[in-house]
Amino acid sequence: MGEFDLIRRYFQRPAAAGVDVGVGDDCAVLVPTPGVRWLVSSDMLVEGRHFLSTVDPARLGHKALAVNLSDLAACGAAPRGFTLALALPRVDEAWLAGFSRGLLGLADAQGCPLVGGDTTQGPLNLCITVFGEAPAGQALLRSGARVGDEIWVSGMLGDARLALEVFRGTVALVGNAFERVRLAMECPTPRVALGQALRGIATAALDLSDGLLGDLGHLLAASGVGARLDVDALPRSAVLAAQPAALQHTCVLAGGDDYELVFTAPPGARLPDVGVPLTRIGVIEAAPGLRVVDAQGRDLAHGLRSFDHFAA
Amino acid sequence: MGEFDLIRRYFQRPAAAGVDVGVGDDCAVLVPTPGVRWLVSSDMLVEGRHFLSTVDPARLGHKALAVNLSDLAACGAAPRGFTLALALPRVDEAWLAGFSRGLLGLADAQGCPLVGGDTTQGPLNLCITVFGEAPAGQALLRSGARVGDEIWVSGMLGDARLALEVFRGTVALVGNAFERVRLAMECPTPRVALGQALRGIATAALDLSDGLLGDLGHLLAASGVGARLDVDALPRSAVLAAQPAALQHTCVLAGGDDYELVFTAPPGARLPDVGVPLTRIGVIEAAPGLRVVDAQGRDLAHGLRSFDHFAA
Repeated sequence: MGEFDLIRRYFQRPAAAGVDVGVGDDCAVLVPTPGVRWLVSSDMLVEGRHFLSTVDPARLGHKALAVNLSDLAACGAAPRGFTLALALPRVDEAWLAGFSRGLLGLADAQGCPLVGGDTTQGPLNLCITVFGEAPAGQALLRSGARVGDEIWVSGMLGDARLALEVFRGTVALVGNAFERVRLAMECPTPRVALGQALRGIATAALDLSDGLLGDLGHLLAASGVGARLDVDALPRSAVLAAQPAALQHTCVLAGGDDYELVFTAPPGARLPDVGVPLTRIGVIEAAPGLRVVDAQGRDLAHGLRSFDHFAA
Repeated sequence: MGEFDLIRRYFQRPAAAGVDVGVGDDCAVLVPTPGVRWLVSSDMLVEGRHFLSTVDPARLGHKALAVNLSDLAACGAAPRGFTLALALPRVDEAWLAGFSRGLLGLADAQGCPLVGGDTTQGPLNLCITVFGEAPAGQALLRSGARVGDEIWVSGMLGDARLALEVFRGTVALVGNAFERVRLAMECPTPRVALGQALRGIATAALDLSDGLLGDLGHLLAASGVGARLDVDALPRSAVLAAQPAALQHTCVLAGGDDYELVFTAPPGARLPDVGVPLTRIGVIEAAPGLRVVDAQGRDLAHGLRSFDHFAA
């Protein structure tokens, strides 16, 4: 099967609403909504770094788009489409069928059509660029947090990291417990509806990909503020809550791959109910830096770092 | 040097005009021009497939963006910005300095700012997604060629392939001759101004990346027409014209990496002069398929194929 057959068989669909030209020309042509801003984000996933070679290809397809949609969600944008650039070592039709099913299943569920991209031979590498829209002046940025704002997080933290530790052999989980945390790692849910519902409410927002401490640090730096975080308030699953305290702290504070939204809002703000649990985890303070305390207010000397692809 | 230092040092710049938020938030935020369509294209470059590991990094940076701008040019779009996703085996500051200089030099020259992206560790892989604009209904597509239209090409064909043959050791060129064809391969010029000037004039257009025969075949298929091509009319450099006829034919018909525009226009159309030579190379016919003839009208049984990443 050649390159163009591969595209037609696994990735080409009739053009979606709002897409004048989809897969198959030099460019895709999209129809913007009048008065909006365009939001753009790219993420690249490399085998062995971002996913294991044994992962179910349908879950990988889902995750590759999910991590990009999560960036749109963090900015409060409505998804409009995405491009996929795919380097494959060889044509493996079973893999492609699973991958495209997972990918396009999430695309359909989120109304975010595949509009173009590239296929080439090379070490397995997926690069997705996603496009969305938000009304002018309403995109949620990292830079708007103000002293006194409360810090909130969606969903639960740390399960993806716990699953990674199982794969690494440092933790043993069996049966349902492992399947549940593995799903968190391999099949994250991007908080697209929540992000849009937070427009005009959240003062700042971002999505968690490298770990809460580091990611929240970016928000604090962009906003020129500090924060106090209550580690005992960080929402976690029953599976994670049954682990030793040190492992729990690593997973919720520096886990990575959470793809939940962290946002700030003034006390008393009316938060949206889109069916996603929201938990208050701290407060914005004037003093720079991030202080992590437990429920009794005791300082937790954490020394944990977020993921950095090039850190020594 | 960590991931975020790397981004700051080599890729972050002040936000450009028309960019509300550039590198550094979850998404870039761009301000569309009212009434336009948005055009999007992605290309991925893999070491060993699309470039040699020994290539000058500044030329590689230039080429990575140039091949994407060439897709915008083929649609008549004005560039507005791009994202870069970069997988690097390790942090090599000399390489990054050269690469970013070549990349951002072309970005500045074309008014197409880097607005975001991703960096990760992995086998060297560059994925660029480029965004542009064109007035509604004026994007140049592959599907508009009509019987009787003339077929035109910009610039010269085949030098990039000739350079590749030198690297492969099948052809020997020395001194200036090699440097000139090597420049065509490593540092192509995207025909951005020409593409925009062809709006309302060309009936169909595309850019040449895999070779004239295959790429023109896509245009013919999309338009539901056939064509006759005059191989002797195909523009080529003095260096290529000094090679044996069979090699010339391979290079101009199936070379790849030309990044020139092929377009169709009605006979007598007033073609734009933007300082790029334009050559009439054939005519659109009703009979399906592509007939290649020489200046005497004799059929050339070519049997040449364009590049296909997964062809056996």
